[in-house]
Amino acid sequence: MKIGKYKADEYLELIKEFHGSTAPGMIAGGFMVDLGLRNLPEGEFFDVICETSHCLMDAVQLLTPCTIGNGWLKSFYTSRFAIIIYNKYTGDGVRVYIDTEKLEKWKDIKVWYMKEIDKTKQDTGKIISQLIEAGSEYMSVMKVKVKEEYLAKKKKKSQPVAVCPSCKEVYYLKFGDKCPACSGNIPYDAV
Amino acid sequence: MKIGKYKADEYLELIKEFHGSTAPGMIAGGFMVDLGLRNLPEGEFFDVICETSHCLMDAVQLLTPCTIGNGWLKSFYTSRFAIIIYNKYTGDGVRVYIDTEKLEKWKDIKVWYMKEIDKTKQDTGKIISQLIEAGSEYMSVMKVKVKEEYLAKKKKKSQPVAVCPSCKEVYYLKFGDKCPACSGNIPYDAV
Repeated sequence: MKIGKYKADEYLELIKEFHGSTAPGMIAGGFMVDLGLRNLPEGEFFDVICETSHCLMDAVQLLTPCTIGNGWLKSFYTSRFAIIIYNKYTGDGVRVYIDTEKLEKWKDIKVWYMKEIDKTKQDTGKIISQLIEAGSEYMSVMKVKVKEEYLAKKKKKSQPVAVCPSCKEVYYLKFGDKCPACSGNIPYDAV
Repeated sequence: MKIGKYKADEYLELIKEFHGSTAPGMIAGGFMVDLGLRNLPEGEFFDVICETSHCLMDAVQLLTPCTIGNGWLKSFYTSRFAIIIYNKYTGDGVRVYIDTEKLEKWKDIKVWYMKEIDKTKQDTGKIISQLIEAGSEYMSVMKVKVKEEYLAKKKKKSQPVAVCPSCKEVYYLKFGDKCPACSGNIPYDAV
């Protein structure tokens, strides 16, 4: 069972290194990305949207060229475990999701995914084994077209910057005469 | 000049592989993360907040255990090129930022950072050379305390899930009797 270009055990090592643990969501996520890529026309430039903000994002970053920092991976939170891989200019793409009907066959995965047992009491070893056995068997693919407003612009305009008169740091001038932090949107206090 | 545990050329290889290019922001970002880590008390469990959504996020993901998918890296957009590395429970930490006064000495970096010349006309080779020469010389560190509402909770409550009666996918029940996508928050059309 391969995940992208990796054998399952290589992928487990990789996610331990990058994500910090072999979380079930990272394993399911790996197979999800793999299935999505296999259903995309070859050679396309694509972007990815994750419908959840956790594990899945890291699986995308490890298995595709898309990262949060290069802007080719975005999160659009719908609370569902799903990804959309699509042509960044036309929006044509595929969405891979967990198919609850197919999940009936995979009892251990269902315990984890549907939270049938409290997380602290789940048998993680058993869940991981079944995730690797199942691959993407409990997932489905649908064709989608990503809406215009979420597509990449072919030519991005360079945005002017300025030094904020209050904090003296550089910010995008479009935010007004002070940076957003000095306008009150700040997560910390100086000490 | 080292960036985290990497020599500059190793780091350049790493970012080309992960981020897709040796973007100046990834190089400045690497030194920024490195400076932050060197100013943090050793052995602390920390989280990271990026004040911008681009390059910098990938530098954090490559040089610390914090990723977008494991939840230890977050974005809090203020339009400024800065990171906050902090104790995830107490909020005590450091903020590293580009110090515009110190930047005067580094003309090529300033051309890039202040967008003094249109991006298409910048001499990227020269900028990258100076970024590597300067290291974190044009950055400053300030002590901060991250606000209570952005800190990690010691014990997270497990949230119940349900199958959405409309799309039949699993979602967090706290969003109501349908998932957020079926409630209208959806980035695609099925085709």
